[in-house]
Amino acid sequence: MNRRIHELSSWLKEQQHSFALITSTANVFYLSGFYCEPHERLLGTVVFPDGEAFLICPNMEVAQARSTGWQGVVIGYSDSDDPWGLLQQEIQKRTIAFDQVAIEKEHLTYYRAELLQNSFPGAVFQSVETKLHTMRMLKDDSELSILREAAEYADFGVEIGINAIKKGKSELEILATIEFELKKKGINKMSFSTMVLSGEKSADPHGHPGLKELQSGDFVLFDLGVVINGYCSDITRTVIIDEAKEEQQRIYQTVLQAQEAALSVSKPNTRAGDIDKTARTIIEQAGYGAHFPHRIGHGLGIDVHEYPSMSENNDTLLQKGMVFTIEPGIYVPNVGGVRIEDDVLVTDNGHECLTNYPKEMQIIK
Amino acid sequence: MNRRIHELSSWLKEQQHSFALITSTANVFYLSGFYCEPHERLLGTVVFPDGEAFLICPNMEVAQARSTGWQGVVIGYSDSDDPWGLLQQEIQKRTIAFDQVAIEKEHLTYYRAELLQNSFPGAVFQSVETKLHTMRMLKDDSELSILREAAEYADFGVEIGINAIKKGKSELEILATIEFELKKKGINKMSFSTMVLSGEKSADPHGHPGLKELQSGDFVLFDLGVVINGYCSDITRTVIIDEAKEEQQRIYQTVLQAQEAALSVSKPNTRAGDIDKTARTIIEQAGYGAHFPHRIGHGLGIDVHEYPSMSENNDTLLQKGMVFTIEPGIYVPNVGGVRIEDDVLVTDNGHECLTNYPKEMQIIK
Repeated sequence: MNRRIHELSSWLKEQQHSFALITSTANVFYLSGFYCEPHERLLGTVVFPDGEAFLICPNMEVAQARSTGWQGVVIGYSDSDDPWGLLQQEIQKRTIAFDQVAIEKEHLTYYRAELLQNSFPGAVFQSVETKLHTMRMLKDDSELSILREAAEYADFGVEIGINAIKKGKSELEILATIEFELKKKGINKMSFSTMVLSGEKSADPHGHPGLKELQSGDFVLFDLGVVINGYCSDITRTVIIDEAKEEQQRIYQTVLQAQEAALSVSKPNTRAGDIDKTARTIIEQAGYGAHFPHRIGHGLGIDVHEYPSMSENNDTLLQKGMVFTIEPGIYVPNVGGVRIEDDVLVTDNGHECLTNYPKEMQIIK
Repeated sequence: MNRRIHELSSWLKEQQHSFALITSTANVFYLSGFYCEPHERLLGTVVFPDGEAFLICPNMEVAQARSTGWQGVVIGYSDSDDPWGLLQQEIQKRTIAFDQVAIEKEHLTYYRAELLQNSFPGAVFQSVETKLHTMRMLKDDSELSILREAAEYADFGVEIGINAIKKGKSELEILATIEFELKKKGINKMSFSTMVLSGEKSADPHGHPGLKELQSGDFVLFDLGVVINGYCSDITRTVIIDEAKEEQQRIYQTVLQAQEAALSVSKPNTRAGDIDKTARTIIEQAGYGAHFPHRIGHGLGIDVHEYPSMSENNDTLLQKGMVFTIEPGIYVPNVGGVRIEDDVLVTDNGHECLTNYPKEMQIIK
C-alpha cells in the first residue's frame, strides 16, 4: 500500500468512517498516480480503514491506470454497465458498515451523491477534503523535482514573452509566441489561461488579453504557468516599454520591496498570514493599500490554487515542504498594474524560489 | 422579462416548483446573457413561477452583469458577506413556498446543496437540467449568427494547420501554429484542447499531441474549435502526407461516404438515432464496424457537447434550429485513424453545414 493511501486509511479508522470515495481528478491522481479526466463518466479511488483500496474507471482507461504504477485492484466498466451498481458491489465485498461515508463534498455533484445515497441508504456523508488538502500541502522529493521543472518552464515562458515585446504587436500576439515556443518544447497544457496585459489593462482584474497593441510607456504584465506530470507552476513579471514615469517607478519598486520582504520571512514556523501582512504593510505605508485587493498568494501543486491559502487570517505555521506563491500587486486605474510572483518552497531554515526570472525593473526599448 | 426566463417561469408554474436556482456558467449565460466564471464563488440566476428573476454574483462582477444586457435585479456581495444567507433573504422576499426547488443536480456540489438545504429545510430538490437543455437545443437567429462565425474560424484553423504540414515538424509545432494564427485574429479561447495527431497516433483515443515528427505516409488528424461570444465550434479533418496506401484510401473514402450519407438525411423529422445508424451501416458494410467506437456526434452551442446526443438510441426527432456535429471515424491500430466532422444546422427542409473546409482526400506533398 502506498504511503498516501496508508495515511488516509489511518485517518478513516481514527474518524470511524466506513470508507472514502475520492472522485476528483486531482485527488485520485495524488492517491494513485493515475491522472484521468473522465468527463461525465465515473472515476473513483475507494479507500477503507482496513482492507485494500481500489480504483474504478472506464474500461478504456484500465490499461493506463495500471501502467502508471497503481498496484491495487482496478475495476473497469463499459458504457453499457451501471458503474454505480458496480461500485456498490465492490464496496460491499470489502466492508459491511456504511454509517459514515467520506466524500469530496465540494466536488461530488448532488446527482452523484443521490446515487451514492441510494446505494448506501442511511449513510451520512462526511468531508474528506480538509484531510486530503492537508496531506497535499507537504510536498515530497518526487513532487519537488517536478515542481522545479515546471517552474523552469515558467521562467522560460516569461523570457520568451519579454523578448517578443515590440510596439505595435498585440497582447494576443505576444501570448501566442509564448505558447508557441512552449509547445515546441513539448508543453501541451498551461496551468491557467495565460495573461499578457498591457497599459491600463494591466490594472484590470477583468482583463483578458486582446488585440490591444503595445505602446510606449505601457506596463506589460505576464502571468503564466505550465503543467508538467500533473503539477503546476505560476509566475508573474511586469516590465515597462521605453520609459517609466515617476509613479510607475514608485509602484514597481513598492511591489518589489513588498515581495522581497515577504520572501525574507518565508521559513518554518512563520504564520502564513504574516507573509501577507509583511507585504501588505509595505504597500499600505507607500499609500497603495487600497490598490492591493487580493491575498499575497496560494498553495501550488497538482492544483494551481491549493493549500495553504496565503491570506492574512491564515494561522497555519509554515513547514518544510510547503510550496506557495508570493505575488503582491498594485493596480491603479488609468495608470496600470504591477505584480511580481514567485513559486516558493519552504526549506529547513528558510526558503527556495523555484522561479528565478530576474525581478529588477526592466525597461524594454 | 426575456423570452427564455419567461419560458422557464412557465415551466416552474406547470411543475409547481417554488423557484429555480441556476448556477452553471453556461445556463446563467443562456438565461441572462452574463458570462461569468466565478470559480469558488457563488453565481446564480434565480427564477420564480411568478415574480421577477434576479442574479446574484460577486460585487466585482456586478457592473459586468449589468452591461451585458441583464435588465433585472443584480444582488452583489463582497468576500466578507455570506452569499448563501443573502440568497436566502432575497428568495424569501419573493416567495413563501419552498416545497420543490429546482437545481442543476449535475452541477451543484453536495456541499452547496447542503447550504441550500439549510436555508430551506424540507425543500425537495428537483432537476431543472432536462428543461434547460431542451430549451438550448433550438437555436435562435442571434445564436446562429455567432455559431456561423465560430465555424468560419474553425475552417480557418484547419486551413492554417494543413498549410503548416511539413515532414519533420512535430504535432505540437503544427498545433502551436494554428493557435498562434487564431490568437492574432483575436481568438483567445478554444472549445477544447486542440488535437493534431499523426501516423498511428491518429487511431489512439488517448492520443495527446506531442513531439512526434510528421513523416511520409502519415495520416494527420486535426480536431479543433473556437469559442466566440460564448458559443463553440468543432471541426475535424484528416489529410495524408505524400501518398496514401490502398487501405488508407479505403478507410478515408468509407468515412467520407458515411459522413455524406449522414448529412443527406439531416432534416426535420429524421430520428436523431437514424443519423448515427445511416453512417454506421456504411462503415459496418465496409468491414470497419468494430473500429467506429463512438456516437456519430453531439449537439453544439454554449457547451461543446450538449443536446441532442446523436447516438443510435436517441429517438428525438430533428427540428429546425438544432445544431450538432456529424463526425464518423474509423481507427485501425497500427494503421491510423480518419475522422471527418462538420457542424450542422437543421433548416426548414434540410440542413446547412456551418463548417465548410473541403472534405475530399488531400495528399500533402
